[in-house]
Amino acid sequence: MGKLLIVGTLAFDAIETPFGKTDKILGGAATFIGLAAAQFEIASAIVSVVGDDFPESYLDLLKDRNIDLSGVEIVQGGKTFFWKGKYQNDLNTRDTLVTELNTLADFKPVVPDNFKDADVVMLGNLHPSIQMSVIDQMTERPKLIVLDTMNFWMDNTWDELMQVIGRIDVITINDEEARQMTKEHSLVRAAAKIQEMGPKYVVIKKGEHGALLFHKEQIFFAPALPLEEVFDPTGAGDTFAGGFVGHLAETRNTTFENMKNAVIHGSNLASFCVEKFGTERMQQLKKDEVNHRLLQFKELTQFNIELEQPHAL
Amino acid sequence: MGKLLIVGTLAFDAIETPFGKTDKILGGAATFIGLAAAQFEIASAIVSVVGDDFPESYLDLLKDRNIDLSGVEIVQGGKTFFWKGKYQNDLNTRDTLVTELNTLADFKPVVPDNFKDADVVMLGNLHPSIQMSVIDQMTERPKLIVLDTMNFWMDNTWDELMQVIGRIDVITINDEEARQMTKEHSLVRAAAKIQEMGPKYVVIKKGEHGALLFHKEQIFFAPALPLEEVFDPTGAGDTFAGGFVGHLAETRNTTFENMKNAVIHGSNLASFCVEKFGTERMQQLKKDEVNHRLLQFKELTQFNIELEQPHAL
Repeated sequence: MGKLLIVGTLAFDAIETPFGKTDKILGGAATFIGLAAAQFEIASAIVSVVGDDFPESYLDLLKDRNIDLSGVEIVQGGKTFFWKGKYQNDLNTRDTLVTELNTLADFKPVVPDNFKDADVVMLGNLHPSIQMSVIDQMTERPKLIVLDTMNFWMDNTWDELMQVIGRIDVITINDEEARQMTKEHSLVRAAAKIQEMGPKYVVIKKGEHGALLFHKEQIFFAPALPLEEVFDPTGAGDTFAGGFVGHLAETRNTTFENMKNAVIHGSNLASFCVEKFGTERMQQLKKDEVNHRLLQFKELTQFNIELEQPHAL
Repeated sequence: MGKLLIVGTLAFDAIETPFGKTDKILGGAATFIGLAAAQFEIASAIVSVVGDDFPESYLDLLKDRNIDLSGVEIVQGGKTFFWKGKYQNDLNTRDTLVTELNTLADFKPVVPDNFKDADVVMLGNLHPSIQMSVIDQMTERPKLIVLDTMNFWMDNTWDELMQVIGRIDVITINDEEARQMTKEHSLVRAAAKIQEMGPKYVVIKKGEHGALLFHKEQIFFAPALPLEEVFDPTGAGDTFAGGFVGHLAETRNTTFENMKNAVIHGSNLASFCVEKFGTERMQQLKKDEVNHRLLQFKELTQFNIELEQPHAL
């Protein structure tokens, strides 16, 4: 059984969308990644840090899905990372109202011994030196190291970011960040430049406009499933990443063809995530719902043009 | 051989993009639609109007592609429709600098007798009463009537637009216009409302973000081919429409499955259109280039997830 190591935040989120608002609820990149990856037949672990204000029930929710939490440090007297944000009417832009790092400020990740040989490592959006320290703790070079990052680290820790990016296989990044990182408007050119920085595979996330996978001359595109209503985009990118690495850890197959499928699995799971606040929809998600929607993805994208034959009249 | 009737503008365009600018060059919706549709084995005709300033060589360029121009009125002493526009740096927004209707202001379309039984009618973006008059001249109900429109007609001629929309089969419209038309942000809901207005099929064009085809509960999505450089987006929407109707006229098959292929053919041809100014790229386009890029579309979008089998470990 493939092993997946997830490093990222466990957090409290408070969210406001045009459809309503929440008090502090369960959030964090590692949470969304872990819940999505739990849809696959894998052994997974989360490395993270929380304060002693983080409810036992949230940890149980992850443990119940067979996620190893021995790498989650609970700081006595500490407070858990907190993010509060508000989405504009079109849900495409959001304003961060509060960011309290709390225990995350001194986070020193410790990889559990039984996951130092993980097949796939998913480095959630964190300070690049934290991401680097996880790679350094692995006793075997993982089959695949996937890294997520954001513009904040480009602005403030460029050199460290470049160092860690030089040691990974796949980067996931959004379109504006890819442009910022490379000063190229064309995503094709941006992806080519990012590959020169290290990662052989580049996943560019475009939110409601889907995701692109680049590798050398090859490009694959997965749309976001068109939905009647997007309720809360929080966690969609991390859920995408969780589906992506979950499938790759399960299959332990890193060919481009299989990575295409991983992108579809990620897009599929992300389409559920946005239907309710926070992790609510992902907590209830059933296997047959997932499979049904995969079928919708096929109908949405698959066509049958035979190029060998001349056009019929 | 399927017959396609195209109604739309033949025009002069003057274009400025971040990469350069042109003087008056060949443009117009009917031009781009006709050049794209000429890639298919069909009989096609354009109904339009120009002034006597419209070069013979432009007309020859269309005639050379077997496009019947007997429905193109040449107004002696009149001037041809002229549009001048400038694109912003991201090419997603453009400012119209000049619009001179000229002979288009009094355009009374006359459908040639030999195309009054056309299989497919493509009504380019024009005043809805002009579009209506074309439908009224058909002696047989076409197999498919496709209509393009824009926000200007929604703002100024809503009632006439609703009347003509009630008599067509397919509407092509961009995402913002679909939202304006229905007051729905979700494109899924917008497409459902538009279907209640008449057209059984709704194509929503999202520019660089691809195109969606809706019919009842079915949705199909085609991405735009990711390109290293988009040089000039002028005519891309019309080229898409030309590929769409060209394929449908050639196959005379209006099933949803075949309409999917038509959307891919449209997206494929549009990907060439944007590579050079105006019609330049479409004029040079070779069949093998078209087929090669169709293969790229397959690689870009096709994946192989088998849902019948359990996941391999």
